[in-house]
Amino acid sequence: MRELCPALLNKTYFNYGGQGPLPTPSLEAIQASWRRIQELGPFTTDVWPFIGAEVSSTRRRLAELCGVAPHRLALSENVTSGCVLPLWGLPFVAGDRLLISDCEHPGVVAACVELARREDLVIDTLPVQQLRGDQPSTDAGVMDALEQGLTPRTRLVVLSHLLWNTGQIMPITAVAERLAQHPQSPFLLVDAAQSFGQIPVQQAAAAADIYAFTGHKWACGPEGLGGVALSERVLAQGQPTVIGWRSLRDESKADLSSSDPFHHDSRRFEVATSCVPLMAGLRRSLDLLDQEGTGDERWTQIQSRSEALWQALNNLDGVTPLLQVPPASGLVSFQLRHDAPPAEVVRLLGQQGLWIRDLADPSCLRACTHVTTTEAEAEALTTAITRY
Amino acid sequence: MRELCPALLNKTYFNYGGQGPLPTPSLEAIQASWRRIQELGPFTTDVWPFIGAEVSSTRRRLAELCGVAPHRLALSENVTSGCVLPLWGLPFVAGDRLLISDCEHPGVVAACVELARREDLVIDTLPVQQLRGDQPSTDAGVMDALEQGLTPRTRLVVLSHLLWNTGQIMPITAVAERLAQHPQSPFLLVDAAQSFGQIPVQQAAAAADIYAFTGHKWACGPEGLGGVALSERVLAQGQPTVIGWRSLRDESKADLSSSDPFHHDSRRFEVATSCVPLMAGLRRSLDLLDQEGTGDERWTQIQSRSEALWQALNNLDGVTPLLQVPPASGLVSFQLRHDAPPAEVVRLLGQQGLWIRDLADPSCLRACTHVTTTEAEAEALTTAITRY
Repeated sequence: MRELCPALLNKTYFNYGGQGPLPTPSLEAIQASWRRIQELGPFTTDVWPFIGAEVSSTRRRLAELCGVAPHRLALSENVTSGCVLPLWGLPFVAGDRLLISDCEHPGVVAACVELARREDLVIDTLPVQQLRGDQPSTDAGVMDALEQGLTPRTRLVVLSHLLWNTGQIMPITAVAERLAQHPQSPFLLVDAAQSFGQIPVQQAAAAADIYAFTGHKWACGPEGLGGVALSERVLAQGQPTVIGWRSLRDESKADLSSSDPFHHDSRRFEVATSCVPLMAGLRRSLDLLDQEGTGDERWTQIQSRSEALWQALNNLDGVTPLLQVPPASGLVSFQLRHDAPPAEVVRLLGQQGLWIRDLADPSCLRACTHVTTTEAEAEALTTAITRY
Repeated sequence: MRELCPALLNKTYFNYGGQGPLPTPSLEAIQASWRRIQELGPFTTDVWPFIGAEVSSTRRRLAELCGVAPHRLALSENVTSGCVLPLWGLPFVAGDRLLISDCEHPGVVAACVELARREDLVIDTLPVQQLRGDQPSTDAGVMDALEQGLTPRTRLVVLSHLLWNTGQIMPITAVAERLAQHPQSPFLLVDAAQSFGQIPVQQAAAAADIYAFTGHKWACGPEGLGGVALSERVLAQGQPTVIGWRSLRDESKADLSSSDPFHHDSRRFEVATSCVPLMAGLRRSLDLLDQEGTGDERWTQIQSRSEALWQALNNLDGVTPLLQVPPASGLVSFQLRHDAPPAEVVRLLGQQGLWIRDLADPSCLRACTHVTTTEAEAEALTTAITRY
């Protein structure tokens, strides 16, 4: 895999959580798909079976990874679309409360704030950022925070599967089980930006109501293609908002009188024309990852690399990892005890070809390890940090 | 241009209104952009200037074609997103009325119906499908229909620039001028799926409130990239709905208390990560079209080809063009006086390598002529149709 990624060959790369490298075979698969569409189409009866097969094989593949049936998997342009498109059509009533973790991405938070403003909902915060221990204590802390955050009017909980800042894994299935006991059965929206492609997600994705991910981070697919796994009740109770020909059962005729012109499966949350050739690229990247090991094996590899990096950083004077224990994921976030602002550290490391990123809340640096990360890379990063 | 499009070399193609052919140099530009992103990034301080330049040069180019300043041009995934994303955040109040033409795409209509259901709005129909004469009589007919369709509560008018079924051009600037006189100043949403890349659109795009288009039809760009020109008042009064990091002024921190975290320009209607390499492809396709002549010159070429096709079809027994005069655009729609359903005719012509499409409302066949259409192609289509 590593040798197939041009992005990894000329730099020391730790930003998989921002965007993964695109392997050359994936780019070639995208090009081949484009050529085939031009050969058969682009808009002909000859090309529809090809496009139909591209869509359905991609949908099946992503659904399988999410542990759901294909009719529960909608394709989307990015994580945000996957989160927000189904969100706007949920059956809220004025006074309902949204419980949002304090580690959610600003885009999803802003969407919830705007939704709350328009529909007269109230936002509560679920504090999980402070949890810095091992997985059992994290899980217990999340469930405690949830218990305290839930109210009789809570109608939606928003929680990432893998926190993008601290790298903690959230106990999504336990949260879903707790919500099922709540009299309102709040919907569970999970931002899976950092989990999909990195750790096994079947159980969490199948347990959530909205489990939205992208192919361009840990799955190393092209930018512009992701998906969202939806629960049966979201399919039944959720109305589509951004509606296009893909949402409609009959796309040929406008029907002003129909109160339910939409597909009853995941397609009700798909919109209109998107870039079909990207699908072949994402599937190819998933194939290449599979060649590195099963999902569980890859997670173990990622953990061993992140543990080594966490240990090395933890041993350095002036460096404090955010977590008090080795991370259960490939996200290694840390703070430096000196005056240089994180963005400046990122820039200086970048000048040496070492790429990590800074985050604002909490203010820290983040390095990601993937199955393609080498020991030499982790050492190079540690050595460079030592200089500060 | 024609020789650069593999899709045109192995078939006789008349479906530009469905999807245009992608020239090989455009596909190469997409690949080159992807390689550059991998070389510099994909997620590094080194790649941001490249991506920033891709986004801003594409925005500038599309804005120029739309006759608006770049801050009024949002990039989108497709026509529907361009129409619908700004639509949901307009300042409607219960009882407002939406006046929608009877030639709008089913996706946009269904979005308006759902919006009306949720916000308690009323939908009125603007009948324009019946207009079948020359441009002056069409213009007069549209303005008459508008006069009759407007009510004191009309808050939005939805009208395509170029009707996808009949091929008629709508007098968008005159409609906009009339709406400006209305006490409510209704918003004007224009579906530009068929106009952008085919006819000059500056005046209409600058006059509309929401002028949404795609790059993958007449502009011969890749699928998955379009844009929308927005009026100053939509930027000032419209709230974003599908919100992501691109909508936010500060994408680094979630701010629950901010009532206005959004960009004040067109970016407030952009969402999150999309496929940046497509931008180079669309710009390259626009360059190639420019090499065929100015916008006005290309429109004249398209008209001369569609007029010849319209004449030839009109001369055939059993063929009735929808329009009573040669079309002002490249859309030539017609009906056959025999029993074969249009979809079957499309299939049979396809078997001979001739590609047109059928439409449901009104039931008809549609052939599109572009600057790449040859006389021989028009003759081949006419000859094939003669056999029925």
